[in-house]
Amino acid sequence: MSDSNRWIDESYQGVVRTGFRLKRRLFKAKSAFQTIEIVETSGHGKLLLIDGMTMVSERDEFVYHEMMAHVPLFLHPRPRRVLVIGGGDGGAVREVLRHKTVELCVLVEIDGQVVSASKKYIPQTAAALSSRRARVIIEDGVKFVRETSERFDVILVDSTEPFGPAKELFGASFYKDVRRILTEHGIVVSQAGSPFYELGTIKNLAKILKAVFPVSDAYLFTNLTYPGGLWAFAYASKGVHPVRHFNSGRVKSARLPLRWYNAEVHAGAFALPEFLRKAVGR
Amino acid sequence: MSDSNRWIDESYQGVVRTGFRLKRRLFKAKSAFQTIEIVETSGHGKLLLIDGMTMVSERDEFVYHEMMAHVPLFLHPRPRRVLVIGGGDGGAVREVLRHKTVELCVLVEIDGQVVSASKKYIPQTAAALSSRRARVIIEDGVKFVRETSERFDVILVDSTEPFGPAKELFGASFYKDVRRILTEHGIVVSQAGSPFYELGTIKNLAKILKAVFPVSDAYLFTNLTYPGGLWAFAYASKGVHPVRHFNSGRVKSARLPLRWYNAEVHAGAFALPEFLRKAVGR
Repeated sequence: MSDSNRWIDESYQGVVRTGFRLKRRLFKAKSAFQTIEIVETSGHGKLLLIDGMTMVSERDEFVYHEMMAHVPLFLHPRPRRVLVIGGGDGGAVREVLRHKTVELCVLVEIDGQVVSASKKYIPQTAAALSSRRARVIIEDGVKFVRETSERFDVILVDSTEPFGPAKELFGASFYKDVRRILTEHGIVVSQAGSPFYELGTIKNLAKILKAVFPVSDAYLFTNLTYPGGLWAFAYASKGVHPVRHFNSGRVKSARLPLRWYNAEVHAGAFALPEFLRKAVGR
Repeated sequence: MSDSNRWIDESYQGVVRTGFRLKRRLFKAKSAFQTIEIVETSGHGKLLLIDGMTMVSERDEFVYHEMMAHVPLFLHPRPRRVLVIGGGDGGAVREVLRHKTVELCVLVEIDGQVVSASKKYIPQTAAALSSRRARVIIEDGVKFVRETSERFDVILVDSTEPFGPAKELFGASFYKDVRRILTEHGIVVSQAGSPFYELGTIKNLAKILKAVFPVSDAYLFTNLTYPGGLWAFAYASKGVHPVRHFNSGRVKSARLPLRWYNAEVHAGAFALPEFLRKAVGR
């Protein structure tokens, strides 16, 4: 058996690669936007890959999705309407819908094939997309935020990398539209890349958010499948400070069945390593 | 060129591997204890590997060494004498010696060839071993703590994995000896493995430290070269609580030239993800 049959490797910037022991390949399709793959591994459950980059591993996707959703949802005074841009795997929607105040979670995913493959092969992650409180729209997220007349309390930008179809999701005009469709205490959280390998991306995003929003910051999480382990979210809000306005009692009394996020982790995630603190100008 | 000539891969538990783009192999020796290798990579500087596992990468070793040394050294009221067990690469000693109160840092490394290879090939990490305030002893660390009549304010257990030569460094009798040779406000910090992949190791170590010391805890850091990125240190002390007794002003006024550790990171590192908090019984 050749090496590529035993490992599924993601090479990153040509200098590092992460490989997962392969059991079998389940699905591969080339959509209008990208290549979508689902594989089964020996130690990490099923993986969803887009253009060869791991987006979801069943073993640890809870970290990314919990940290993306619960930080803003426990900060917003009463989140009722949530928008997820990208995230066709459904993991972010699953975490959003754990909050009882949420009446509607709209997912706008550019690629319908990501949604259908996720529903079929990784239901642990995607099942929430079939909830009565979820609405799935197959459309370009940039176009959606530019044109919609709807308003949202929390927006999650669950994108792929800052190139290819997701490129505009890292730009200033997109974030001006995001601000327009956020309600009074609105919060936006965006996947922002690796502090070690993509410091430039984080710096650019930090600069844009600082210019567009009165409150902006960054926070960190670690998972098994993204290169380097450590990864960042960008945070911005019309007025909610992510640490000073955080009420840890709310997390405790909600008693959600979470495996990563808790009140201490919330505060700790905003502690930025010295080189990153300098880079984002905090 | 075959694949193994282009990447240096570390396979872990048979289910995951991390590979670094290889430039050239610089050194390989089989000592009485283990296989030692130094290679040069395209994106991560030089790596030190022991038995095929990456111990140090020049690009990011500062994270591990800063987090291991500065957490206890900024907590101890006045650290003068520090002991490092293992850590023959010298990175922990380098960080310890940044503290002006430290008069002597003793390094006890079982394998003299780790020290000599590190001094020759990775001086950025190892140069501090030649300091007048450092004393290098080539001896089994377990034997040293059992027999020494010296006393230390801070002890760092900078070990390899909990099998092979370092096995006893994860046992109860070792920690009883550590307690004996610690001074009144003494603190010990130990490399404790991956929360994702080695939860059992962390749980065992937490149980031992809880039985031997009045104060025990765990804290986290993330680097590029250890599988999964996220890694843990075990913390124990004769009386210094790692968060309640922490004085952030001391960090600010010390003005050390650090790239990772700062006062916020200190506190944030003790925020344990929910599954880990439960596992260590905090």
